Amino acid sequence: MPVNLPPPDPARLLPVPGITLGTAAAGIKRPGRRDVLVMTVAPGAEVVGVFTQNRFCAAPVSVAREHLAADAGVRALLVNTGNANAGTGADGIARARATCTALAERLGISALQVLPFSTGVILEPLPADKIVAALPAAIADLRPDNWATAAEAIMTTDTVPKAVSRRVTLDGTDFVITGIAKGSGMIHPNMATMLSFVATDAPVSCEALEAILRHAVNRSFNCITVDGDTSTNDACILIATGATEAAVIMDDADPRFLPLRDAVTEVMVQLAQAIVRDGEGATKFMTIRVEGGRDEAECKQVAYAVARSPLVKTAFFASDPNLGRILAAIGYAGLSDLEVERVRLYLGDVLVAENGGRAAGYREADGRRVMAAPEIEVRIDLARGTAAATVWTCDLSYDYVKINAEYRT
Amino acid sequence: MPVNLPPPDPARLLPVPGITLGTAAAGIKRPGRRDVLVMTVAPGAEVVGVFTQNRFCAAPVSVAREHLAADAGVRALLVNTGNANAGTGADGIARARATCTALAERLGISALQVLPFSTGVILEPLPADKIVAALPAAIADLRPDNWATAAEAIMTTDTVPKAVSRRVTLDGTDFVITGIAKGSGMIHPNMATMLSFVATDAPVSCEALEAILRHAVNRSFNCITVDGDTSTNDACILIATGATEAAVIMDDADPRFLPLRDAVTEVMVQLAQAIVRDGEGATKFMTIRVEGGRDEAECKQVAYAVARSPLVKTAFFASDPNLGRILAAIGYAGLSDLEVERVRLYLGDVLVAENGGRAAGYREADGRRVMAAPEIEVRIDLARGTAAATVWTCDLSYDYVKINAEYRT
Repeated sequence: MPVNLPPPDPARLLPVPGITLGTAAAGIKRPGRRDVLVMTVAPGAEVVGVFTQNRFCAAPVSVAREHLAADAGVRALLVNTGNANAGTGADGIARARATCTALAERLGISALQVLPFSTGVILEPLPADKIVAALPAAIADLRPDNWATAAEAIMTTDTVPKAVSRRVTLDGTDFVITGIAKGSGMIHPNMATMLSFVATDAPVSCEALEAILRHAVNRSFNCITVDGDTSTNDACILIATGATEAAVIMDDADPRFLPLRDAVTEVMVQLAQAIVRDGEGATKFMTIRVEGGRDEAECKQVAYAVARSPLVKTAFFASDPNLGRILAAIGYAGLSDLEVERVRLYLGDVLVAENGGRAAGYREADGRRVMAAPEIEVRIDLARGTAAATVWTCDLSYDYVKINAEYRT
Repeated sequence: MPVNLPPPDPARLLPVPGITLGTAAAGIKRPGRRDVLVMTVAPGAEVVGVFTQNRFCAAPVSVAREHLAADAGVRALLVNTGNANAGTGADGIARARATCTALAERLGISALQVLPFSTGVILEPLPADKIVAALPAAIADLRPDNWATAAEAIMTTDTVPKAVSRRVTLDGTDFVITGIAKGSGMIHPNMATMLSFVATDAPVSCEALEAILRHAVNRSFNCITVDGDTSTNDACILIATGATEAAVIMDDADPRFLPLRDAVTEVMVQLAQAIVRDGEGATKFMTIRVEGGRDEAECKQVAYAVARSPLVKTAFFASDPNLGRILAAIGYAGLSDLEVERVRLYLGDVLVAENGGRAAGYREADGRRVMAAPEIEVRIDLARGTAAATVWTCDLSYDYVKINAEYRT
């Protein structure tokens, strides 16, 4: 059961002018389930993306990168769930291309203008024919207000679809930002995460959009972990259709750049947090905040050591303030010159450890009170600088094991 | 239930001339349980050790390092379970010293000649008074043939005591090597692991003994992981009493050096594997062998990425050949120039993946057959060099979560 994550209200998901979405049931894994999504993008839109750093990246990641580099103008995205088309070699590339070609023919565009995405089981051939057969139904379904069903169509082990909308007013003009994401396991992003598609109708140059994407991803999808496994299929796509009339935002000198960047970041933070809240087997949502570091990188390093530790995660599952496990994780995070006597550890508002040991005023009952809540903040002050970083994660429960032991059955 | 790990047969554990062991029940965590071990070492023995690299290292680790550096000649080891004396600051150091002083007084030696070791819960004050009160009983129990009860006295979440003996004949003289270890969770050694004490009656110089220890640890305790958490209390101690008459082995030019080194390594490999076989919740014992790397470091890096992956570990728990998860772990191991098309993945004797995808001859039934066994070898050929490395690990089961969620209750 996800942690404080109600399903999105379709009525509150705002269409993005310039974007239509359609879904269909291709029967990839389960008959009757909507497992294919087609998203069309109006001509002239700018589309930028970040992808997994996993060397065993999926075939669609390779093809999407190639098509983006071709600079032919992206006009459509094709997404399937139920099969990752990863670990599939040259045949996987050919199948990904075949689905792009089939969609392009039906839409009257070039295959280079289609970006493919897949998610699901690795090491099994993509049933490209089933996807192609479902395209007419998906195309017939294309509508601007289909974001909620789109979010549903890209789910794998997700229990709740993830979609966020936000309005932003820039220099008197109202714009929309709407995004969807999927992901629940194999979550430890490295420059991107799982699948996320975010669009705005604001007009933005390619360079400015890249800058916004980098900023937003580094503060959202690159700040989460469920199980420490980096997916083969991670991708995050940001689209600016420019369908609502306004002067193009060329770069960060434009006064509209920062508010737009921050609004996109907020949407991505909410989507990233939604992935953690719906992390496989999650019962707790944890914010790991590391402060007082020399730079952001070392803060993130410590935060991830804590967030990934199975011992820390099981203690949170048990609501047991066995907080020495957090100290142990800080200690092995790789900061070889860390002076542990200066480190302070807080659980929520409770000071737990200082001077290398348990804080004098710490009472187990206070620790238990904080641990009992479904949302918990762990704050670590390294006391050696001014940098900070935040990472979000969830606990490790019986259900994580159950979900992943039974994934293919 | 441990994987193929019967309890050691006390009759087959060989006493080491120059070593006596005694245990007692101090009531640290549970009344009546033998939780304190005293080990005495004959005068003139060489004692060397490696310790955790965790910055939040436990107080006894700091004190043991200091006492070894003082070079006063180690005469006794004092070990307790039930409390790690880690995350305890200056007070923890004082308590560790107090127990050394108390033992030294009773044995008529100097406190600098005592090495302290603790294992158990972190962030709680060491009940030094209870340990001191138990010393007379432990001393009264000192006997050369107490290795089996000693192995039992240092257990925490271990379900089986771990002890190994071996005879080695060097230049016509018979020597003994006997060692014990404890560890089951928080196992991801970094230059040492958990607690292990190995002794031989061979006469060895300090330098030669250091060389043997480094070699053996790098091929045993530094090749295992259960949950990826590096303990605050890791320590591995190697003792050469020299109590059996022979010329001292000064360095590796001595023809007896290599056979002794290899025998010690074998003992430590068995102890390290015993820790994994008894890993918390383990139902499978996995050997991850990476070949064809440019150097040993990158082979180990890939092997550990696979061995630590919760997704790989849960798939093994389920006996499900969901082997794409192994490819994903290889892909995110951090070898940024890895050509995945050249990588070959074997499960036991079955070729699973090559050319970036599933091997043409691979049949799911073959994968299932190998996965059904309690001991499984995963072999990965990186095909870019001649180096190799092996790592041992276990699966991730419901019981791992149960054990660690309920650890303090």
